[in-house]
Amino acid sequence: MFAEIITIGDEILIGQIVDTNSAWMGIELNKVGVKVKQITSISDDAEHIVSALDEAQKRADIILITGGLGPTKDDITKHTLSKYFNMPLRLDEETLAHVKLFFEKLNRPMIDVNIKQAEVPDGCTVIKNQNGTAPCMWFEHNGKIIVSMPGVPFEMKYLMQDEIIPRIQQRFQMPFIVHQTILTAGLGESFLAQEIADIEDALPSHIKLAYLPKLGLVRLRLSATGSDEPALLAEVAFYTKKIVERVEKFVVLTEDVPFEKAILNLMGKHGLTLSLAESCTGGYISHLFTQHSGSSAVFQGGAVTYSNALKQTVLGVKEETLVTFGAVSEQTAKEMALGAVNNFKTDYAIAVTGVAGPDGGTAEKPVGTVWIAVASKAEVNAKMYKFASQRLQNIERAAMAALMMLFVQLKQDLKGG
Amino acid sequence: MFAEIITIGDEILIGQIVDTNSAWMGIELNKVGVKVKQITSISDDAEHIVSALDEAQKRADIILITGGLGPTKDDITKHTLSKYFNMPLRLDEETLAHVKLFFEKLNRPMIDVNIKQAEVPDGCTVIKNQNGTAPCMWFEHNGKIIVSMPGVPFEMKYLMQDEIIPRIQQRFQMPFIVHQTILTAGLGESFLAQEIADIEDALPSHIKLAYLPKLGLVRLRLSATGSDEPALLAEVAFYTKKIVERVEKFVVLTEDVPFEKAILNLMGKHGLTLSLAESCTGGYISHLFTQHSGSSAVFQGGAVTYSNALKQTVLGVKEETLVTFGAVSEQTAKEMALGAVNNFKTDYAIAVTGVAGPDGGTAEKPVGTVWIAVASKAEVNAKMYKFASQRLQNIERAAMAALMMLFVQLKQDLKGG
Repeated sequence: MFAEIITIGDEILIGQIVDTNSAWMGIELNKVGVKVKQITSISDDAEHIVSALDEAQKRADIILITGGLGPTKDDITKHTLSKYFNMPLRLDEETLAHVKLFFEKLNRPMIDVNIKQAEVPDGCTVIKNQNGTAPCMWFEHNGKIIVSMPGVPFEMKYLMQDEIIPRIQQRFQMPFIVHQTILTAGLGESFLAQEIADIEDALPSHIKLAYLPKLGLVRLRLSATGSDEPALLAEVAFYTKKIVERVEKFVVLTEDVPFEKAILNLMGKHGLTLSLAESCTGGYISHLFTQHSGSSAVFQGGAVTYSNALKQTVLGVKEETLVTFGAVSEQTAKEMALGAVNNFKTDYAIAVTGVAGPDGGTAEKPVGTVWIAVASKAEVNAKMYKFASQRLQNIERAAMAALMMLFVQLKQDLKGG
Repeated sequence: MFAEIITIGDEILIGQIVDTNSAWMGIELNKVGVKVKQITSISDDAEHIVSALDEAQKRADIILITGGLGPTKDDITKHTLSKYFNMPLRLDEETLAHVKLFFEKLNRPMIDVNIKQAEVPDGCTVIKNQNGTAPCMWFEHNGKIIVSMPGVPFEMKYLMQDEIIPRIQQRFQMPFIVHQTILTAGLGESFLAQEIADIEDALPSHIKLAYLPKLGLVRLRLSATGSDEPALLAEVAFYTKKIVERVEKFVVLTEDVPFEKAILNLMGKHGLTLSLAESCTGGYISHLFTQHSGSSAVFQGGAVTYSNALKQTVLGVKEETLVTFGAVSEQTAKEMALGAVNNFKTDYAIAVTGVAGPDGGTAEKPVGTVWIAVASKAEVNAKMYKFASQRLQNIERAAMAALMMLFVQLKQDLKGG
């Protein structure tokens, strides 16, 4: 089963926005056994939309179109689809009621162009967009499925997850796909591959192993495809166990949740609380935790101490420590972490202090030098990392390393306790 | 002059990596008057590469191919191009010398696949890749330019900037393109369009207006194409002025930088400092500021006070306030902002407290209710917002609203001062 993603809109072509939608869709479609054959980004141009649609149908069974559905004139997708499928536009009463309600809730007046959002090609299946005013439109054409949806990520994601993917699964006889993720840390992709080469070679042809490296971690994903779900589950469990046993000390998780969510789950289960003392990561680790609903049961808060003054007043780092060892040092990282545990009254705290770059590096502490400390009420440990020269990448890598250090400490403490 | 970008590699199609290269290329090409007509992401498959090349040449004058040139996947792209252009592979001595030197520097042994990297289709122009081993290959075919380059971002960027774009400019007579961005807030896309409809309708055909809405802000972009650069600049300035005058009270910026960066620039220019007190945004606003190099001149740090206890101990919010009005209230938001200004000793502070959801809402304060306060040494103001039910979206919208409130306050204070 092949899909093609068509994104409509000049924003992507002129580089104003990075197309993150397609990657997300690729992941979700893969999970249910739909392979993305091509991603095509085109302009808001009727002729171009038509030729992209024609070409896509030669390659794919399912064509997913995002974008080009806003209320203004630069959006011509709906008119083009109406002509393409020879379905004149009609006013959809249900969509109109939804749009009206949407504006009522926002307490804003509706104007003509908003009413036009309720027009749909007569003959398509209209799928309600719970998170916006532009409806999602589902067409069936010569045995192919063509779906047009808004490009706004949270509108698209909801529609894909709750509406489109379930309908695709219902419409086609999809095989079962069973995925199992093994998150590893501490071993590079090629070394990991070497360690488990014989297991990989012995996998039956309906089970694939993928290596998904990201920010110093490697996620292994086993995917089994077939018609007998219980058998697939058993097979995947068998090979997962084999791999986990082989590279045990590098295995972090076998759940398919973000790393920080797994930490929240683990700490929540044991009634433990966490606080943060962030310097060079500047709030990014806090954001990682707090993007998850329910994080407040574990995460109490923290300090973003960009200046040395705040490291002293909020976290109690000694002036002497900052003068003698500098802000980026083992001593400062440890005092930050201990300050967080004590001042914020949590069971654990992470502290991160480093040179994110591109400026601020010295010969002794070049850009990319980061000290991370993890403190509990019983102890504090710190470790130095050397990342590269890209600021955002350094922030992300430092965050991952910090999560890893906390996770290892938790595992050790909980095993001992 | 039209270009098409073809990215080769499964990583993008399965969502393993987000294609950030194409957006970067789109920006750089636009600057020199090359319009990206389409971005096509395809798999490592000879037949697919050939059909993508055929189709691209119908649409574009310049085809830029990234990826598919690593030492392992090498064979497919290069062999396909060799066959496609009917140019047998030859060993390029200069490239071989470069590859050898590269491995010598890394102090690593060369293996066969590395020598193969020095093979190129006989007849293409070989462009040396200073940052890697895979050479860049430039083909001319029926009046079209086809360039194949590695997909590693820092190899691609160097090649584009120092080699490919200068060669394109030399090879074609390029028109000038002038862009102007107007960032607006407080008026939806459709209302904005209504306000300036007559200006938009009167635009000459070589000047386009685009609406780029995001999180409650709408970016307007005027793009003018032509051969007389001073005339284009004057025309764009003329229409920019007209639009800005018409919707003046909604115009935030006419610079093309992220909103938070514009605030950092403005505050930096006036020697002002900022701190944050984040509850429901959980560090996201801190992260927005600190992702920008040089932010530490303005941004001193802040507190992520997820728990009520931290709101009291770190920010000095009174227990009475929390008990009487609740954590999500005007009073708490104001005390948080004042606490940040006083405890963190900054000129300004923003505080955000709300119900991000999906849990935690009440009849009185449903999910999406957010109080934002901006404090300076002279005053504190707070405002309530009602966002929707999606947690991440609420975090992002609250962040944008907070930036907006700070910006308006700064504008007012700086005008008065």
